[in-house]
Amino acid sequence: MTTTTFDLTAYLSDRRRQADEALTHALPELGPDDPGKLKEGMQYALLQGGKRMRPMITIAACEAAGGSVAAALPASCALEMIHAYSLVHDDLPAMDNDLERRGRPTVHVAFGHAHAILIGDALLTRAFEVLGRGVSSIPGERIAAAMTYLAHHAGIHGMVGGQALDIEHGQNILSLELLERVHALKTGALYAAAGAMGALCGGASESQVRDLEAWGLKFGIAFQHADDILDDDQQTLRTEALARVDGLVSECDGLAEQFGERAQPLRALAKWVKDRAHAAHAGVKAD
Amino acid sequence: MTTTTFDLTAYLSDRRRQADEALTHALPELGPDDPGKLKEGMQYALLQGGKRMRPMITIAACEAAGGSVAAALPASCALEMIHAYSLVHDDLPAMDNDLERRGRPTVHVAFGHAHAILIGDALLTRAFEVLGRGVSSIPGERIAAAMTYLAHHAGIHGMVGGQALDIEHGQNILSLELLERVHALKTGALYAAAGAMGALCGGASESQVRDLEAWGLKFGIAFQHADDILDDDQQTLRTEALARVDGLVSECDGLAEQFGERAQPLRALAKWVKDRAHAAHAGVKAD
Repeated sequence: MTTTTFDLTAYLSDRRRQADEALTHALPELGPDDPGKLKEGMQYALLQGGKRMRPMITIAACEAAGGSVAAALPASCALEMIHAYSLVHDDLPAMDNDLERRGRPTVHVAFGHAHAILIGDALLTRAFEVLGRGVSSIPGERIAAAMTYLAHHAGIHGMVGGQALDIEHGQNILSLELLERVHALKTGALYAAAGAMGALCGGASESQVRDLEAWGLKFGIAFQHADDILDDDQQTLRTEALARVDGLVSECDGLAEQFGERAQPLRALAKWVKDRAHAAHAGVKAD
Repeated sequence: MTTTTFDLTAYLSDRRRQADEALTHALPELGPDDPGKLKEGMQYALLQGGKRMRPMITIAACEAAGGSVAAALPASCALEMIHAYSLVHDDLPAMDNDLERRGRPTVHVAFGHAHAILIGDALLTRAFEVLGRGVSSIPGERIAAAMTYLAHHAGIHGMVGGQALDIEHGQNILSLELLERVHALKTGALYAAAGAMGALCGGASESQVRDLEAWGLKFGIAFQHADDILDDDQQTLRTEALARVDGLVSECDGLAEQFGERAQPLRALAKWVKDRAHAAHAGVKAD
């Protein structure tokens, strides 16, 4: 098995174009009497930039399981909506009180505080509708299972739980173990959902769904460690974190092996995270 | 067909007991390292009182379609969670800024503003998980359809849209038409979801699902009109609203007719709303 001939940049560029296209159609058409500012805010939060990492993983997992890009698009849109809503709510004055994101005013600055709460709620809710209305060729029980995975990993046992844990512990996250628990919930959970949902939409077996869920979780934690190293956060834990990235990426590769050549994108993505972490660590040490 | 021998009070008391019992088990078990305050806040918002009207309609619709109470319980819990989250977010300082609800401090007063946002998000998300993990005897495509109805009616085309419309129009709701549009979205939509979801879980045909969805919408609007009359709101529209309640309840009865004796609870509930509106109107006039 080789990843050297695989062009990750071209792959991501193509899949990202398809995910972006699907996202522009994922918000509802409104009549003249409908709440226009709410929809405008949902578009503002969802459609301006972002790396679309969660859709990429969803698509790559679906393809690893033998499914098409098209089969993964509703789940990809749903995940990006959950991610977008979480940013809207996290930016609120009562949370991080951020005024800018990606060089533009945050949603509550642009649309007001009350609307920002509703825009987040509407995006979160719309995610499940988009997934439910998704692809008619996918059996109902796979759609229901994908929705349940999404709810599980986005809620108290996943992303929202991680956000709450972060608030409850504040600045007292001093061990790599607790840091990784927060990363697993805040970041890893949605990637775990991406792996599981992509697998379900691609026709994977139950054990394959669980393996791609685990792949996503490990990838997400490694990704967040790499980000920490890059952002110069958690300085005392930096070398420990780099070793964890290596370990997690190696576990990802073990889980992806069963999918053979079809898992080339997943392997290349995992390698990219590892390279990123090492480059950041080397850069930091060189300062 | 007669409703005179049907004991609505006994029916509601029994079904409410079953819905309350299901709700106490609908929140996840947590380990010692999990975000305890988040779960505590979810319990606080969900388990202390409330009329459980949406679960009652879900159960009654399921029974009208020939299903059991047990088949309707996950959908009932999901709807009550959506209702509970909407109250938590509506009470926030940026929205209605309410400090008390049902004689107790609101969630943001008791748990802090940041946690209140997350408690609402977690309840909203958990609703879909509870529904997805629900009853194994219900086919996956019915569960997926129920989740999609829930998302549709809870989101921009339903409850959240109504909330936004209410904010966007503010005090300028002067026609019964616009008032009813806000009622249909803010209140009616979740009752429409209750009718459709109950029907789906009860094994109803596609046209029966649509009819019970319509029943729920009309019931919800009538219920809200009755509440307005009771609360002495919208004084100028009061007599017009009373006539609408009569019309809506009569349409409800027409939709319920096909279900025969099994629709006794639905008929009794519709009659109860009509009686309530008339009593309130008479009381108001007598002042």
